[in-house]
Amino acid sequence: TRVRLPVAHSFSTTACRQLIKPLTELPDRIKPSFVPQPCNTLLALQWPAPPRNILITKKKAVASITASLIEFSQHLTSTYPSINIILEPDAADEVHEKLPFPVYTCTPPVNPNSTSPHLSSKTDVICTLGGDGTILRASSLFSHAASVPPILSFAMGTIGFLGEWKFKEYKRAFREVYMSGAHDAYFPLSDSSSKTSPSYASMRGKSMGHQRTARILLRNRLKVGVFGPTGDRINATDQEGDTYALNEVIVHRGSSPHLKIIDVFVGGRFLTEAVADGMIISSPTGSTAYSLSSGGSIVHPLVNSLLLTPICPRSLSFRPLVLPAETPITLRLGEKNRGREVEVSIDGKRISEGIGVGMEVRVLGEQVKDPISGEWDGGVPSVVRGTTGMEDRDEDHWVGGLNALLKFNYPFGDQDGQGGSGERR
Amino acid sequence: TRVRLPVAHSFSTTACRQLIKPLTELPDRIKPSFVPQPCNTLLALQWPAPPRNILITKKKAVASITASLIEFSQHLTSTYPSINIILEPDAADEVHEKLPFPVYTCTPPVNPNSTSPHLSSKTDVICTLGGDGTILRASSLFSHAASVPPILSFAMGTIGFLGEWKFKEYKRAFREVYMSGAHDAYFPLSDSSSKTSPSYASMRGKSMGHQRTARILLRNRLKVGVFGPTGDRINATDQEGDTYALNEVIVHRGSSPHLKIIDVFVGGRFLTEAVADGMIISSPTGSTAYSLSSGGSIVHPLVNSLLLTPICPRSLSFRPLVLPAETPITLRLGEKNRGREVEVSIDGKRISEGIGVGMEVRVLGEQVKDPISGEWDGGVPSVVRGTTGMEDRDEDHWVGGLNALLKFNYPFGDQDGQGGSGERR
Amino acid sequence: TRVRLPVAHSFSTTACRQLIKPLTELPDRIKPSFVPQPCNTLLALQWPAPPRNILITKKKAVASITASLIEFSQHLTSTYPSINIILEPDAADEVHEKLPFPVYTCTPPVNPNSTSPHLSSKTDVICTLGGDGTILRASSLFSHAASVPPILSFAMGTIGFLGEWKFKEYKRAFREVYMSGAHDAYFPLSDSSSKTSPSYASMRGKSMGHQRTARILLRNRLKVGVFGPTGDRINATDQEGDTYALNEVIVHRGSSPHLKIIDVFVGGRFLTEAVADGMIISSPTGSTAYSLSSGGSIVHPLVNSLLLTPICPRSLSFRPLVLPAETPITLRLGEKNRGREVEVSIDGKRISEGIGVGMEVRVLGEQVKDPISGEWDGGVPSVVRGTTGMEDRDEDHWVGGLNALLKFNYPFGDQDGQGGSGERR
Amino acid sequence: TRVRLPVAHSFSTTACRQLIKPLTELPDRIKPSFVPQPCNTLLALQWPAPPRNILITKKKAVASITASLIEFSQHLTSTYPSINIILEPDAADEVHEKLPFPVYTCTPPVNPNSTSPHLSSKTDVICTLGGDGTILRASSLFSHAASVPPILSFAMGTIGFLGEWKFKEYKRAFREVYMSGAHDAYFPLSDSSSKTSPSYASMRGKSMGHQRTARILLRNRLKVGVFGPTGDRINATDQEGDTYALNEVIVHRGSSPHLKIIDVFVGGRFLTEAVADGMIISSPTGSTAYSLSSGGSIVHPLVNSLLLTPICPRSLSFRPLVLPAETPITLRLGEKNRGREVEVSIDGKRISEGIGVGMEVRVLGEQVKDPISGEWDGGVPSVVRGTTGMEDRDEDHWVGGLNALLKFNYPFGDQDGQGGSGERR
Ligand SMILES: NC(=O)C1=CN([C@@H]2O[C@H](COP(=O)(O)OP(=O)(O)OC[C@H]3O[C@@H](n4cnc5c(N)ncnc54)[C@H](O)[C@@H]3O)[C@@H](O)[C@H]2O)C=CC1
Ligand SMILES: NC(=O)C1=CN([C@@H]2O[C@H](COP(=O)(O)OP(=O)(O)OC[C@H]3O[C@@H](n4cnc5c(N)ncnc54)[C@H](O)[C@@H]3O)[C@@H](O)[C@H]2O)C=CC1
Ligand SMILES: NC(=O)C1=CN([C@@H]2O[C@H](COP(=O)(O)OP(=O)(O)OC[C@H]3O[C@@H](n4cnc5c(N)ncnc54)[C@H](O)[C@@H]3O)[C@@H](O)[C@H]2O)C=CC1
Ligand SMILES: NC(=O)C1=CN([C@@H]2O[C@H](COP(=O)(O)OP(=O)(O)OC[C@H]3O[C@@H](n4cnc5c(N)ncnc54)[C@H](O)[C@@H]3O)[C@@H](O)[C@H]2O)C=CC1
Repeated sequence: TRVRLPVAHSFSTTACRQLIKPLTELPDRIKPSFVPQPCNTLLALQWPAPPRNILITKKKAVASITASLIEFSQHLTSTYPSINIILEPDAADEVHEKLPFPVYTCTPPVNPNSTSPHLSSKTDVICTLGGDGTILRASSLFSHAASVPPILSFAMGTIGFLGEWKFKEYKRAFREVYMSGAHDAYFPLSDSSSKTSPSYASMRGKSMGHQRTARILLRNRLKVGVFGPTGDRINATDQEGDTYALNEVIVHRGSSPHLKIIDVFVGGRFLTEAVADGMIISSPTGSTAYSLSSGGSIVHPLVNSLLLTPICPRSLSFRPLVLPAETPITLRLGEKNRGREVEVSIDGKRISEGIGVGMEVRVLGEQVKDPISGEWDGGVPSVVRGTTGMEDRDEDHWVGGLNALLKFNYPFGDQDGQGGSGERR
Repeated sequence: TRVRLPVAHSFSTTACRQLIKPLTELPDRIKPSFVPQPCNTLLALQWPAPPRNILITKKKAVASITASLIEFSQHLTSTYPSINIILEPDAADEVHEKLPFPVYTCTPPVNPNSTSPHLSSKTDVICTLGGDGTILRASSLFSHAASVPPILSFAMGTIGFLGEWKFKEYKRAFREVYMSGAHDAYFPLSDSSSKTSPSYASMRGKSMGHQRTARILLRNRLKVGVFGPTGDRINATDQEGDTYALNEVIVHRGSSPHLKIIDVFVGGRFLTEAVADGMIISSPTGSTAYSLSSGGSIVHPLVNSLLLTPICPRSLSFRPLVLPAETPITLRLGEKNRGREVEVSIDGKRISEGIGVGMEVRVLGEQVKDPISGEWDGGVPSVVRGTTGMEDRDEDHWVGGLNALLKFNYPFGDQDGQGGSGERR
Repeated sequence: TRVRLPVAHSFSTTACRQLIKPLTELPDRIKPSFVPQPCNTLLALQWPAPPRNILITKKKAVASITASLIEFSQHLTSTYPSINIILEPDAADEVHEKLPFPVYTCTPPVNPNSTSPHLSSKTDVICTLGGDGTILRASSLFSHAASVPPILSFAMGTIGFLGEWKFKEYKRAFREVYMSGAHDAYFPLSDSSSKTSPSYASMRGKSMGHQRTARILLRNRLKVGVFGPTGDRINATDQEGDTYALNEVIVHRGSSPHLKIIDVFVGGRFLTEAVADGMIISSPTGSTAYSLSSGGSIVHPLVNSLLLTPICPRSLSFRPLVLPAETPITLRLGEKNRGREVEVSIDGKRISEGIGVGMEVRVLGEQVKDPISGEWDGGVPSVVRGTTGMEDRDEDHWVGGLNALLKFNYPFGDQDGQGGSGERR
Repeated sequence: TRVRLPVAHSFSTTACRQLIKPLTELPDRIKPSFVPQPCNTLLALQWPAPPRNILITKKKAVASITASLIEFSQHLTSTYPSINIILEPDAADEVHEKLPFPVYTCTPPVNPNSTSPHLSSKTDVICTLGGDGTILRASSLFSHAASVPPILSFAMGTIGFLGEWKFKEYKRAFREVYMSGAHDAYFPLSDSSSKTSPSYASMRGKSMGHQRTARILLRNRLKVGVFGPTGDRINATDQEGDTYALNEVIVHRGSSPHLKIIDVFVGGRFLTEAVADGMIISSPTGSTAYSLSSGGSIVHPLVNSLLLTPICPRSLSFRPLVLPAETPITLRLGEKNRGREVEVSIDGKRISEGIGVGMEVRVLGEQVKDPISGEWDGGVPSVVRGTTGMEDRDEDHWVGGLNALLKFNYPFGDQDGQGGSGERR
């Protein structure tokens, strides 16, 4: 998945071909707030002014998805004239000639694990076209940003677990995100016409149909730091500080055929020595990913916690743990390990090579609610899709996903058999 | 499941109503042999003479199944004139007036856990109409018999895991069982007309279509003895000796809310003290029943073994065990147990009450192949259904059952979704 | 565990034998507050005035524990003259003649599942002498009280998972609880002599040694309501409303040998139909109890959540779930169940009989932090023992318990062997 | 674990330094038979003539083990004059100068996965000094041989699960193996002096103490073939044909961070598509190795079976399977896999590189009992240690290993606590 460099003339300014422009030309990001709602565990999206800069990421190398990207971009720019489209460098390169308007992009990072700081200072909304892998990649573009823009994800083909919307719903979905803040639903006591942000005024005349405020599930991330035997940070990129993970960080034997011996510290205290293929520290969001395959429980994304799940532990008694998100966890590769190398991966992407004995991975859960101000910030704000006709209930898309996607508690028996009732659920 | 007594006049001999007759009037059982086949792990059924006495058991209290019983009985007696129908007492009572021929039955046992010894000395073939529960009940009628007749089981409604045939196939299925031995398939070198049992001669003229020999899966059972603190047998019935189980024997806390403490001996040697809801000792056949729910592995019925699976053990390190079938296993309720009572059940039927501290359950796997003569005997000979068009292959109905019934390794994802390929398997 | 009635003359007022007195004669309860501490996830206990009424519960029918109860009571009344001892009726009856001071008790409840409302209006501190079972029983005495007094639990014999202190530490332990509020540790800026509650003044002269404030782990409970087919509450006791559980509530097949079919609703939405021995809804505290035996993950008591763990589910794909504590969960015994009865138990005690089809168990996690005021209240405030020499650190007794008691990730190998290093941890 | 070449002069024949000699100079192997015993599931070792050629393998790079090798070799050659010592090339090189007699070795194989055919035609007994890893390496030296000599394994340091004897028992242990066949225990009806092999006559005068016949556990292996997309064998070594595995063969994602998609065929029939880190096909012996870590059941080595255990499957419903040893299993890396490479390992040793889509691993259990002659052959004949004083019973070393080494069902609670009884088992 190496990033193809945009061709050299991309940033050219010749009159007829101003197609790829640098991110820095865009106006700064507009940051929404997330408002708790009565009788609903989801948050309401609230823009102070309409979003303008839309980053679209897509699954690579699938022609039909490239076509969808073009269709979607054209819809956005024609329906919402003030909107600007941001693409990843290779996607920009691939489609800019087919678009009647300029696209914006960042310079590709030198280090594949680096992220462009401009993305987080410019992007208002992220839209993804693909599956869970595309969402993870989009989130990794903000893996050094404390504040991630809302993500609106469209499943292309099979529905993923993180993604929500079907592509054919894109008009309604985007409008819902865009308009969240324009109308009066959450200012019941105020004079709405005056309070609504003036920038939404231009939308007034247009018939946008009945409005629903976009619902946000704020997915906590993990803050991950990797340190070498001498105590210096290892996942050295241009960025400083920790890397955020949406699903999990893993330490794994990788291609070594031998067991790894990993010391686990919880809250600064030695917990245990894991002898295993590896260890997973997962967010609740990641509880349905690798941790699930390794025997972990399924944890609802709103349970503020970290999962510690071993991968093939050589012990009969290493049960997965669920710990408070505030507890720092450290994995250390102790002296007993033979061989040099260990695999460290974040959200399915290797972040390190050649590190072994003495290495440490330090993890802490991200706080998405400020304990003082009570404001919500951080995390990956995911726009949740309402079940048709149940938009007002606190419908739990997550429960639906368990059944439809994970085939949770799939019933035994021959449902299609001769005498069966067909549908047992 | 209390057995209704047949009405008093049942055994009457008045001319017009000779409808229910005692089993003892029937000719003795004809015992088939089970012949190994090249390139096939299943055995071929081989009758020395055509079977005559057919026991039919059915699921209780379902009107449509009673109707099927009548249809099936009439088919048998009209197509195979020498055949006699045996029913359980309550079924005999329920249907005998609707049948134009007499049915045979045994006197209902005084003790619900007893079995009629006449059933095993008279029955040539068992047919079941119902689900796995009906097969288990049929097998329990032979729970004190070393040799069980072949079982032909028809699923009524949903397909079970032990059952094989759809009811609409009953004509073909029974003919296959009946004719196994009549034709020449397995006497290729002999003069078939003379060698074939003369009793099959009468079938000759009839056009029975192409013949297939019935395939038998010999399911090993467990031999179970329950003993009180003083060493005497507890599941005291009229019968002496051990009780055979098809699925499993369990020891369980039952209605006591407290953990049980069970000493486990393997091969006469103390293995461990289980602190748990209970313990299961299962046959491979039972590995897809209760043992599966308790975390046991799935064991193919041809793996000659016993499973030791704890139910909710208070230990992180009690992994299920698979032991050689020849190994005797004992469960003993030690002194540490508070309270009096424990539940002991065989194949889902409680066999004991009021026993507690000091009680022992002793189990041994049944041998179905005589180590000296190499002959196959014992077990529950189950007639396996061939996949149409694959009758000659060693088609593994068991693999099919894993997928179709247990939803083994059911794939994630939205198979019915917008872009899915529909079928992933 | 039927309660023996105190003999008739117990409440007599004759001059020489005023030994058992009614609870109602005691002064009202003093309610402490729980103060968050910097760098520590535990809370500090803070009395407005010294506690006076101490309820002591003990394991039954163990002579040495009865002796310890006498020793402990005598210590309390002689060291802290204003202290009153409350005992359960049968314990009062058993020991009052051996004590030189009166003890208080409540009238035994008519219904064994009822609790005395006076206990919660009078008790300042609960002390338990026994194991986890004794703590659960003590907690069940407050199963209808929104506010439970702090529990100081002494292990008699083997250390339990909920209990903390060794009995030989009882003097230091109780003093720590008693004095939490008397000294100045947490009023660094104030004039301590004036601020300290005057009632502690009497302790001043006495040399009590260095003081440590008692640390509290506030264990969330579950609020459980059981409802019959017609919608009325079933666990009908004198008390109204829900019952609080410390570990879990379970629905189980009990003595029925057949699978139960339980509809599970999460957040009001149908999640799944469980076909199983039963279902557990557990608090994080209960995650190391029955839920662990049934395959659940281990959840730290500070993770604000509920666990949904099936018991022997007849499905390959029913993975335990961890849900937000705020999510209401309902278990309903649907129409498909044969048989009448089901076992419903709270913390190992059956609470219902004779209920079957149509029954519902409704559960919600208890909130221990008021979302508005930010105050801590409710839950079971458990006094946590500090590791000697580490009293100031946020030592995690819980991590210690995993290793020492649950033998978490117990290493393979012959530690005592010829060449082993003895200690691998 | 690359083999160091013996120094060039090793095979020199100069008078004074005839220290390392080629294997080919040794007399041919003497093949023992394995005799079933009444009331014992183990087999008795029976030499037709005393063994002469003893292969000793040792754990590498541990000085104390090298010293033990020297001590052991000297004991053997001085006590049993006709015995010859065979060492692996690097061990021969390391110690030959310290030994007063020549040692034999094979030329190191060109391909690290090849094995020397001379080893299997010359070796009478294998002795290992080390842990399970050393036994696995010794067994891998015979991974192309249908008949493996008996293995006598000494644990150096911690006891392993496959190994049996403590090093300090080496005299008694070796004598037991050596003398199995010399005395009359299993010829009760014969004139022993004449029937005993004449070669044992020389031992007669010597006082060897009471004799016990060595007990053999014949461990079935797996026959593994790896094939490329075009159908040719891949683990191309000098040897032809399949490779035998003692524990297991695995297919694994290795260093690729992505899930593998593996089609599984059982008995030639498609079973399922595994989406997982990898798949394990294990022998019962290997059931306590990697398969255990991946959630497999523990299977007794005498259960004639194969285990199919997934590694981190992305499915809730992939339960481990136990299949008949005679069932061929195939793992195929289908078209859906991205990326090229997959890791295939036998007994912890990678056997392939650079193979991906289209690759197949085909496995069959080894038969150790000839179905026609009833003779025992093949497998890895492991000399089992008797519990002192229980030599005549069918003591199950395996049950002992579960408890002592795997900490099977390790009891909860503080065994060393204040009031505990110390030993609960
Ligand atoms: N044995 C396993 O289960 C393994 C799982 N993974 C997971 O894959 C992720 C990376 O995804 P890709 O790059 O697409 O790799 P991939 O191509 O290996 O696919 C991973 C699968 O996991 C699913 N997935 C990802 N996040 C999920 C979530 N939060 N909940 C439920 N399903 C989820 C995706 O839909 C996809 O089916 C990692 O974060 C890790 O969690 C990675 C390696 C092995
Ligand atoms: N938690 C659990 O899984 C429990 C399982 N059982 C099983 O139920 C059996 C008794 O059956 P019923 O009287 O019908 O009771 P039941 O009405 O409780 O149903 C048991 C279920 O197990 C299935 N079953 C039975 N034998 C099977 C086998 N060998 N492989 C796969 N599925 C099988 C049946 O089709 C039925 O769905 C017992 O032998 C025991 O194995 C009994 C109680 C609890
Ligand atoms: N199969 C199982 O694991 C079963 C467990 N239980 C548990 O027993 C509890 C009732 O306790 P008792 O009346 O003493 O019954 P009991 O005499 O059956 O013992 C239960 C055991 O669980 C332990 N325990 C209780 N709460 C615990 C916790 N929160 N964490 C760790 N260990 C804990 C106790 O120390 C004791 O060893 C129930 O709340 C339930 O959780 C009850 C029945 C079966
Ligand atoms: N996650 C895991 O559990 C892994 C296990 N392995 C196992 O390691 C074996 C190779 O051994 P080494 O080269 O020493 O690798 P290693 O240095 O990684 O150690 C493997 C461990 O497995 C133990 N072991 C080996 N065979 C065993 C058996 N049959 N029963 C019980 N314990 C056994 C050894 O004593 C050692 O503790 C492989 O055959 C595989 O079974 C290899 C990689 C990962």
